[in-house]
Formats: sequence, structure tokens, C-alpha cells
Amino acid sequence: MGFALDERLETSSHLITTTDGVQVRLADDARFVWIVLVPEQDGVSELHDLEATDRVALLDLATDLGVWMKTRFAADKINTAAIGNVVAQLHVHVVARHLGDAAWPAPIWGVGTPEERPEESRSGLIAEIADFLKTSRG
Amino acid sequence: MGFALDERLETSSHLITTTDGVQVRLADDARFVWIVLVPEQDGVSELHDLEATDRVALLDLATDLGVWMKTRFAADKINTAAIGNVVAQLHVHVVARHLGDAAWPAPIWGVGTPEERPEESRSGLIAEIADFLKTSRG
Repeated sequence: MGFALDERLETSSHLITTTDGVQVRLADDARFVWIVLVPEQDGVSELHDLEATDRVALLDLATDLGVWMKTRFAADKINTAAIGNVVAQLHVHVVARHLGDAAWPAPIWGVGTPEERPEESRSGLIAEIADFLKTSRG
Repeated sequence: MGFALDERLETSSHLITTTDGVQVRLADDARFVWIVLVPEQDGVSELHDLEATDRVALLDLATDLGVWMKTRFAADKINTAAIGNVVAQLHVHVVARHLGDAAWPAPIWGVGTPEERPEESRSGLIAEIADFLKTSRG
């Protein structure tokens, strides 16, 4: 069986790159720098559904992104979460948060209305994140 | 420097046990089975502030609890998250979620008002979680 990305993840985020079997996606919401990691595996909903090595690799990737995002975007806090109450397909959020951002200090999920990121800004951000991953992970 | 638990974590949760330098705490909210993991380390706010071995161990602990909670409480989904926008001291939430629970399908943080768990029920739950950890982790 091939992996099929959940339609809601597909329509709410853009693929940045795929690394080690994990899709790195940028959520379509200009209010936040918000990355979503989706392992390309069928039938996986919980972190514990992954094999241990895949889980550690996924969370290492989330951590590496968090370190970089905190500096690059001068974030006050990184939020890392596997929730998935609406979309069951396993996905891990990594979000750069700032004092006074559109949801602060609440979690971002379900707060307000996503804002579209202009195409040029989105392309630049995607290129920058892809470049970070390429440089840092070879 | 000794570790000092953040006062808000202390007053909003009960210590279940400490395992491998991590406090396992039960959040005081009868609406959910909600565990909070707090590494007993000073000055740690982000997952990436931990040494890699400590971070992997912490997330393994969260995963082990998630597996058990999903079965034991017949959860529909486990939510695992490091947020910390209000309390900066690193803490990882592991929450058993159910369709129709008090926040479903939203994340639980900041939703509604915590409900007190009767002392007997709380003691029983704490004993059961402690027993699971003792049995599974030696």
C-alpha cells in the first residue's frame, strides 16, 4: 500500500521537502511559522504506532527544526505537539511562538482564522527551511 | 543548584513518582486523564535544551505512558505536547482523549475550568500509574 497524505493536511499546508521518509510541510497560516511533519507511513496515528527508530528520528527532526526556528525567527517559545484529534494521520507540529502573536499564550490550534501567506513570502520561507534541512542533514 | 518545580505546576498537579530524573505528575483535572512529565533539571525550557539522551528518554517515557493510557482508558487519541507558553519550565503533556470529552476535538489547554478529582479516585489513579511505571520500567 502506498502512503496517501490526508486531504486536510494536503490542502492546509505546502510540502517543503521530504527527509528520511518524513514530509516536512509549511502550514498555510501567515500568522505563525508553523511546520508539520508527516511520516510517509500508512495506518500510523499515534507516536507509539511508529517503530522506535522512526519515532526517535521523527522527534530528532522536530527538535532540530525547533532549535533553528527559535533562533532564526527569534521565537519566545517553540511548541511541539502530536495531537491529531481531527486528522488522525500522525503529524507533529513545530511552531515558533512569540509574545503577542495571534494566539499567545494559548496553543494555536483552532484559534481564529488562518491568514494566507503571500506567494513570494511563502516561496522564500520554503526555500529557506529546505536549505536549512539540506545543510544540517546532508 | 537544586531543581525547583515551578509553582504553577506544583499547585495544578500531584506527584505520582519520579523515574530517571523525571517527575511524573497527574494534572488536577477530573475531566481528563492528563499526565505531565517534568525533568528535574534547572533552566530547561525547550525540548532542545535537554541533552539528547535525556530528551530521548523523556519522549520514550511519554510514549510508554501513551501506549498504556490508550488501552487502559480506552482513549480515542493520545495528545503529546511540549507547549510551555505560560509555564516556561519544560514539561511534556500526555493526555488521554475521548470523543465528546470536555474539549474534544480541540486541545485541552485553556479550555473550560478544571474539575477537582475526588481524593479517593485521585489516589487510586496515582497508585495505578505508579504501578504501571514500576512494572514496566523496573
